[in-house]
Amino acid sequence: MTAQQLDMTFSALSDPTRRAILARLATGEATVTELAAPFAMSLPAISKHLKVLERAGLILRGRDAQRRPCRLQAAPLGDAAAWLGDYRQFWEESFDRLDTYLQELQEGEEEDGRK
Amino acid sequence: MTAQQLDMTFSALSDPTRRAILARLATGEATVTELAAPFAMSLPAISKHLKVLERAGLILRGRDAQRRPCRLQAAPLGDAAAWLGDYRQFWEESFDRLDTYLQELQEGEEEDGRK
Repeated sequence: MTAQQLDMTFSALSDPTRRAILARLATGEATVTELAAPFAMSLPAISKHLKVLERAGLILRGRDAQRRPCRLQAAPLGDAAAWLGDYRQFWEESFDRLDTYLQELQEGEEEDGRK
Repeated sequence: MTAQQLDMTFSALSDPTRRAILARLATGEATVTELAAPFAMSLPAISKHLKVLERAGLILRGRDAQRRPCRLQAAPLGDAAAWLGDYRQFWEESFDRLDTYLQELQEGEEEDGRK
């Protein structure tokens, strides 16, 4: 996995339509028309998103010229998750701090309630 | 976590300099000058990257007007990892397929070697 591949993966994931397309493809392959159906978007606009996903290696297009169904290719998601995994201790610490803060807040309110 | 927050997190992560800045901050807080040192980049260019990271909630800048040290805020990385986690079965399958393929390739070569 190169830095450039990570750039393309994270960039591809930074759009809600592209994330929704991946979520749809997680349920099975689909044609462009099928993918476009839930979105208020033109076919060319969807095709543009598919090109970004394809360049990032996140989808594969079938060779059948008529349908060209899209299929999820999840390996780059695993690479992105591995990169994020290096920071696990940091986000777990920050969630712990939030838990402690919320607990203190609640205890303070209970304390106030008893006064 | 909103879709817009995920957009900003993934977008912030789609640049190698910004990922390197986060990696540096994982070792402790640092000033802009300290962060800029390893890069062949101007202070304004680094500051621009820091603004992207700050808007994404990935760093916090100190209030000390002179130094304004930057600190890692890892919670959004946890949210991004949680999103990716939904696809774990898919990338594990694709890694398994790659393993099988490589194993078959190796067995084929050994077979050829024996001929």
